[in-house]
Amino acid sequence: MASNGDDEQIKLVEGPAGYVLEDVPHLSDYIHDLPTYPNPLQSNPAYSVVRQYFVDEDDTVQEKIVVHKDSPRGTHFRRAGPRQKVYFKSADVRACIVTCGGLCPGLNTVIREIVCGLHFMYGVTEVIGVDCGFRGFYSKNTVALTPKTVSDIHKRGGTILGTSRGGHDTSKIVDNIQDRGINQVYIIGGDGTQKGASAIYKEIRRRGLKVAVAGIPKTIDNDIPVIDKSFGFDSAVEEAQRAINAAHVEATSVENGIGLVKLMGRYSGFIAMYATLASRDVDCCLIPESPFYLEGKGGLYEFIAKRLRENGHMVIVVAEGAGQDLVAESVEQQDASGNKLLKDVGLWMSLKIKEHFAKQSVLDITLKYIDPTYMIRAIPANASDNVYSTLLAQSAVHGAMAGYTGFVSGLVNGRHTYIPFNRITEKQNKVVITDRMWARMLSSTNQPSFMNPPKGTTVVSD
Amino acid sequence: MASNGDDEQIKLVEGPAGYVLEDVPHLSDYIHDLPTYPNPLQSNPAYSVVRQYFVDEDDTVQEKIVVHKDSPRGTHFRRAGPRQKVYFKSADVRACIVTCGGLCPGLNTVIREIVCGLHFMYGVTEVIGVDCGFRGFYSKNTVALTPKTVSDIHKRGGTILGTSRGGHDTSKIVDNIQDRGINQVYIIGGDGTQKGASAIYKEIRRRGLKVAVAGIPKTIDNDIPVIDKSFGFDSAVEEAQRAINAAHVEATSVENGIGLVKLMGRYSGFIAMYATLASRDVDCCLIPESPFYLEGKGGLYEFIAKRLRENGHMVIVVAEGAGQDLVAESVEQQDASGNKLLKDVGLWMSLKIKEHFAKQSVLDITLKYIDPTYMIRAIPANASDNVYSTLLAQSAVHGAMAGYTGFVSGLVNGRHTYIPFNRITEKQNKVVITDRMWARMLSSTNQPSFMNPPKGTTVVSD
Amino acid sequence: MASNGDDEQIKLVEGPAGYVLEDVPHLSDYIHDLPTYPNPLQSNPAYSVVRQYFVDEDDTVQEKIVVHKDSPRGTHFRRAGPRQKVYFKSADVRACIVTCGGLCPGLNTVIREIVCGLHFMYGVTEVIGVDCGFRGFYSKNTVALTPKTVSDIHKRGGTILGTSRGGHDTSKIVDNIQDRGINQVYIIGGDGTQKGASAIYKEIRRRGLKVAVAGIPKTIDNDIPVIDKSFGFDSAVEEAQRAINAAHVEATSVENGIGLVKLMGRYSGFIAMYATLASRDVDCCLIPESPFYLEGKGGLYEFIAKRLRENGHMVIVVAEGAGQDLVAESVEQQDASGNKLLKDVGLWMSLKIKEHFAKQSVLDITLKYIDPTYMIRAIPANASDNVYSTLLAQSAVHGAMAGYTGFVSGLVNGRHTYIPFNRITEKQNKVVITDRMWARMLSSTNQPSFMNPPKGTTVVSD
Amino acid sequence: MASNGDDEQIKLVEGPAGYVLEDVPHLSDYIHDLPTYPNPLQSNPAYSVVRQYFVDEDDTVQEKIVVHKDSPRGTHFRRAGPRQKVYFKSADVRACIVTCGGLCPGLNTVIREIVCGLHFMYGVTEVIGVDCGFRGFYSKNTVALTPKTVSDIHKRGGTILGTSRGGHDTSKIVDNIQDRGINQVYIIGGDGTQKGASAIYKEIRRRGLKVAVAGIPKTIDNDIPVIDKSFGFDSAVEEAQRAINAAHVEATSVENGIGLVKLMGRYSGFIAMYATLASRDVDCCLIPESPFYLEGKGGLYEFIAKRLRENGHMVIVVAEGAGQDLVAESVEQQDASGNKLLKDVGLWMSLKIKEHFAKQSVLDITLKYIDPTYMIRAIPANASDNVYSTLLAQSAVHGAMAGYTGFVSGLVNGRHTYIPFNRITEKQNKVVITDRMWARMLSSTNQPSFMNPPKGTTVVSD
Repeated sequence: MASNGDDEQIKLVEGPAGYVLEDVPHLSDYIHDLPTYPNPLQSNPAYSVVRQYFVDEDDTVQEKIVVHKDSPRGTHFRRAGPRQKVYFKSADVRACIVTCGGLCPGLNTVIREIVCGLHFMYGVTEVIGVDCGFRGFYSKNTVALTPKTVSDIHKRGGTILGTSRGGHDTSKIVDNIQDRGINQVYIIGGDGTQKGASAIYKEIRRRGLKVAVAGIPKTIDNDIPVIDKSFGFDSAVEEAQRAINAAHVEATSVENGIGLVKLMGRYSGFIAMYATLASRDVDCCLIPESPFYLEGKGGLYEFIAKRLRENGHMVIVVAEGAGQDLVAESVEQQDASGNKLLKDVGLWMSLKIKEHFAKQSVLDITLKYIDPTYMIRAIPANASDNVYSTLLAQSAVHGAMAGYTGFVSGLVNGRHTYIPFNRITEKQNKVVITDRMWARMLSSTNQPSFMNPPKGTTVVSD
Repeated sequence: MASNGDDEQIKLVEGPAGYVLEDVPHLSDYIHDLPTYPNPLQSNPAYSVVRQYFVDEDDTVQEKIVVHKDSPRGTHFRRAGPRQKVYFKSADVRACIVTCGGLCPGLNTVIREIVCGLHFMYGVTEVIGVDCGFRGFYSKNTVALTPKTVSDIHKRGGTILGTSRGGHDTSKIVDNIQDRGINQVYIIGGDGTQKGASAIYKEIRRRGLKVAVAGIPKTIDNDIPVIDKSFGFDSAVEEAQRAINAAHVEATSVENGIGLVKLMGRYSGFIAMYATLASRDVDCCLIPESPFYLEGKGGLYEFIAKRLRENGHMVIVVAEGAGQDLVAESVEQQDASGNKLLKDVGLWMSLKIKEHFAKQSVLDITLKYIDPTYMIRAIPANASDNVYSTLLAQSAVHGAMAGYTGFVSGLVNGRHTYIPFNRITEKQNKVVITDRMWARMLSSTNQPSFMNPPKGTTVVSD
Repeated sequence: MASNGDDEQIKLVEGPAGYVLEDVPHLSDYIHDLPTYPNPLQSNPAYSVVRQYFVDEDDTVQEKIVVHKDSPRGTHFRRAGPRQKVYFKSADVRACIVTCGGLCPGLNTVIREIVCGLHFMYGVTEVIGVDCGFRGFYSKNTVALTPKTVSDIHKRGGTILGTSRGGHDTSKIVDNIQDRGINQVYIIGGDGTQKGASAIYKEIRRRGLKVAVAGIPKTIDNDIPVIDKSFGFDSAVEEAQRAINAAHVEATSVENGIGLVKLMGRYSGFIAMYATLASRDVDCCLIPESPFYLEGKGGLYEFIAKRLRENGHMVIVVAEGAGQDLVAESVEQQDASGNKLLKDVGLWMSLKIKEHFAKQSVLDITLKYIDPTYMIRAIPANASDNVYSTLLAQSAVHGAMAGYTGFVSGLVNGRHTYIPFNRITEKQNKVVITDRMWARMLSSTNQPSFMNPPKGTTVVSD
Repeated sequence: MASNGDDEQIKLVEGPAGYVLEDVPHLSDYIHDLPTYPNPLQSNPAYSVVRQYFVDEDDTVQEKIVVHKDSPRGTHFRRAGPRQKVYFKSADVRACIVTCGGLCPGLNTVIREIVCGLHFMYGVTEVIGVDCGFRGFYSKNTVALTPKTVSDIHKRGGTILGTSRGGHDTSKIVDNIQDRGINQVYIIGGDGTQKGASAIYKEIRRRGLKVAVAGIPKTIDNDIPVIDKSFGFDSAVEEAQRAINAAHVEATSVENGIGLVKLMGRYSGFIAMYATLASRDVDCCLIPESPFYLEGKGGLYEFIAKRLRENGHMVIVVAEGAGQDLVAESVEQQDASGNKLLKDVGLWMSLKIKEHFAKQSVLDITLKYIDPTYMIRAIPANASDNVYSTLLAQSAVHGAMAGYTGFVSGLVNGRHTYIPFNRITEKQNKVVITDRMWARMLSSTNQPSFMNPPKGTTVVSD
């Protein structure tokens, strides 16, 4: 029954004035003669007053919207939302949800709204949760999820399903999906997880199964491309203020006080940058995308000394992935067990700065180091992220019910869309340090650009 | 020197494939031969690494981005941001800031960032604050604003400049602007305020003055059209959760408990709708855009009785502008002084519901009424609103320095733009109850549609 | 089996130097030859290291501790805590818990810790919850309470058991206690509730039943005498800060701004007084214990006008029971339905003040009224109240297991004690306005003393 | 003029029935014929209604209040509060305030209320702040403190005066006090600071100066004896909940998740113990007072494995001073720079636990370590601590004005008292692990007692 199309190929539709639609796969791409059913929402009283409810088949969302008079129209994505026709009978749906990777505010809201969306909008009653990430498909029991069991979970941090990192066996997962009769798979996770989701989708397609695979991209670091912003990011930036405030209080309450805060961001410095812009109490913000160095002219030590002499105190924010080359170079020469801790850039920097100024014996500094990482990750979503996560989850449900597969649900220019997996996983979203947002940040801190390291100095490059 | 162009006319630029630019006025539209200067940002070290810093003159932002393959390109707005050339010498700038209307989280951030933006980006040192709204131009002393005086104000709610409502004399304001030598006017306020700003701009233009007038739209109710979202809205929805939570606790702790929460929204129910969606503890959400009635079949009383019998408790959220016709009809027949209080829909409803169920003597209800309005308005902006307010303020500063006038700084599809006054003031943004967001809301509460009132019943119509 | 002693008589034990112990009743006072059992805590591993664990039978806590060299020693109460011997076999215990009256932070903690205390310390497994207050004994089903069902309830506001106010039938309650085989009754509630508890205890004693009755006094207003402080009071004062802050922001953001906050306190102004002392932003604090008047020399209107002229803004805090005579006099002459609302002193004052200054037409005031009552009552207990509520509950459990009855568990001078019902219910705790705490408050606000009303003025007297 | 009495001797007054007053020094003890003045509060309008305002000279507060019928009355302290007569003319007072040691919520409130108390109650206008601790007396400029400059500082964390740790020169401090004409010295700090204060007092007495020295004991760890509780402690326990909650969320969101939280408490585990009791989510609480060991039967590793097998997750709270012998033994054998970090018991334990279970390769644990120390210290005081700090500061002011010196202001059994320095500094307050509070804690966590280490095991002893 399954077609043998090259599923790697991206579905492109072209139109006038340079219009391109990067479309997502559909079950009917590889299974022919699938029956369709009227969308149950048509008889839902809540929707009876809503005239423009169903998404027009032709609706697409433009990606590049800063344009010139003569610009080509460029890439578009399929608009998310309910369709007139669905490809699943409600009573036949057996959906599962899995969460993978690190914690992020909003995970429970997404879980809740997939369950409630399937139940209340589509009358789907069979939803199961996979325990502790991808491996749970074959190594754990599942749990039944009902509107009642998920009713209050959005007020709690973490994920009620549990999560895990690391390897998994795509083939065993798809075996399990087949064995359990699952036909909708919702996968919540980051970059790596969505690569896994893509592999699962391909294997399902290879086997010709009528199983829709929908991803909801999750990354507290906001490092997923294409989409406006990842859910939980706002909540994380909000909570990070608390640590920066504390660092500011500590720094201003002693002579030559330094408050050092490490924030999340292994490959991208968005949280550090936005938290710095929101707080205004930060003197220096170091992120993975912008190289820096410690010693010599234009280096960090020099800047610290300068700022302390001017103000008597300072606050430094460092993203966890900043300065990794410096850390590696400094630590690899040693092998004592305590040095494992030094791979943490925050601990490493606090030690380095203290040692430097102790040697100098000119400025008698007091440094306080704060790592709020796990306190930030574990908060429940704020109101804005709750609404956002709700809509992401509902979009994913509408998409799967409508037979789309191999897609993630994502916000593009404020509109909900379906995006093919490859666009999400092919690269990472990073702070563009030649762009205006970073310039605003620099302008707010007046920190050095670290552009002219003395000869022989190691500079972290991206 | 001034041209005598019809300033009412909207500046439209047309392009291929249905492209239209709704442009904003520029000082050079009515004053000829204005000198220009290189943008001081060119020598700002923070911007030295930023290659794509200046906004291209041709950059515009598309308004309608859910499109079909063959859609016309439609309306665009001028992209906000710094230009290569500015129309003011920094040393000549004398800017003033005024805040009008009700409180809104983020007011102080906007003030702070206009001051700091002018100072740090453009080297402008003369910024004055107008005390207590428009009338302050001619009835009050001004205050000098420096980066130092505004340094910490973003952590406080309210507005350090004070605000007021109501009438003002455009002519006296412009006299005062002329007398004080002010050449940039930043006006932060809502609908009515921006109409006032528009009148000020026209009078300035009529007099041929080189004075840039920039608005920053402010409305906690989110009722300003065109823009994605008003600053402070997220913070308000967040804080509203607290009241809804309390109402939920009160309602669930007694038999037949009803928690009634009034939220802001005189003409539009956005806060009520988003707070309901974020919270999930609400059983009924009443907004100005959606008519309702109390008595009879399909009415509110019937729904309350039903929900109490099912669950034993319920939470109702009512926007302040909901049900105004019902209130007016009920109250106008009476004139005792206490009845003034009944114009408040929250107090009116709490009385009505209590009276109804006391008469019925079937359900012995306990109703607790919470009005968190002033506790919400007075909070400081959250991190997300702080960043948003910062960028709005910086955009306004870039626009005024570049000689634009008669515009507001606004976010359109996630991009900062300049929008002509008339587009902001010509109508109000309202919840479209035939749209999907409201359907989602209804679906989450399962409340009645109030579509079929019994004969003779008054239904609030919009 | 029961003795026929006069249960009204207070148990007094006298000692040297004026020592008096006001003891609590014991089951053995009216049931003879009761068997005792070793306390199961003796074999509890958690207590194995605790040498001084059991309370000495002779331990008592002194009430008056500000003494002179020659003062008599005065009243003492029995110290709370576990005894060597208990009067119930764990397997025989069937306990019930009931909550009555208004919400108060900490109710759920008390419920949780009675359940967990009985379970983990004494091995008691049968604990039932009475639904919705005293009436629930005979009109509702009970719910089984286990450590698992109460595990997380301390993080939620309100009471999971539900509560109610008003009349109940003592005899039917005791019938029900007898019928269900309940032998420990834990009653959480205020003044009126403890009077009810006392009646239940007396009826039980009259019937000669082996049932221990223990009260845990609850009053968010802190108006219960003898004890240091009621649970939930700290949390309430903390939360009240939020409303006062908002009122302060509103008041300072307009010309002649007045922020008016109503706080709980029907008969005593403790919350208003402590919130004022903690906040420092309040200009005038009005409580039931201190009379005031509006018009004329030394009146509130005069003070408002003075403070507005000096500072441009002011914050007023009024306890709900303040000025009741003024309200009654003002409102009783009218009968329109809206006037019901005016019985609320906050709404009444806001109307009165607005009317007064509108008539005066000298000061153009803007008044914002905030009533945070239900937002305060509904919060979960803070950490301090959680620990306090825990110890109160454990004390009650130790007391009941040891055979004491007709007592409340209360903190006296920082020590947990058992206090006879009558001492708690015979009068109310009030702010003593001739004492230093009130003087501190007056000194912090510099408000008038309202001591010299003009002739013919109504002054609220207590 | 000065007497030459032995200032080391404690002032003891004895009375009947074993009454002992441990009195505090007074300026008149060593300076004869000091004039007195009527207390200015007598003409303060705020106090005009307060009849029982002044403290009776004979008022003392009993220390031991859990008594038997025949107990001796024991130690008493002098009651704090305003006296009829003062020993300073308001116009002559020149007061200074210094803060020393680590940050603690409430520091700014104490500063504020000394300034405002002196100003508003006693009409004292000359108050200066010493910058950055004891050393600031001779190495820094002072700052003038007025009610206006301190008006809002209680809403901020930290200390506006700055603080420092470590050595200082008593003689130079007293020289400076003399040179600047200071006659009231308020010293806010912990154990070590109060020892310094005592030395300053003795030197002042030796020189016969009319300078009152008053201490306000500060310790976030609550490790100061005699007093009920140190200011800031409640706020710290409250804030610690946030970290424990996060650890709980992290632990429950993965398989075999361990959340490890380090809390303050170098020598005493009060914060850890109270935070554990308040939270109820903690499985194991380790404090300096209670020895523990890692390996073997009854050790921590065994307990972790057991709890993970039972529940799948666990939360451990460790006070910073717990297990110091274990840490020392483990770390002293190594000398690489990273090992400095291992002196932190939290980092050390997280490494040790990870290494242990990695070696075991039976349980695949995930451990998240949270150190909220500087986020807790830096918060502003909560309402309860604000009121408490206010009263402590006012008591100190009343005492100094009344001529008392060499004392700290402290709460004993809920009453404000003056306590001689030596009683505060002679020992530390510690958790008594043979007392009931610790038993309650053990009972709530069901953790092992660590009482029977295998032979050869190092056990931390106190």
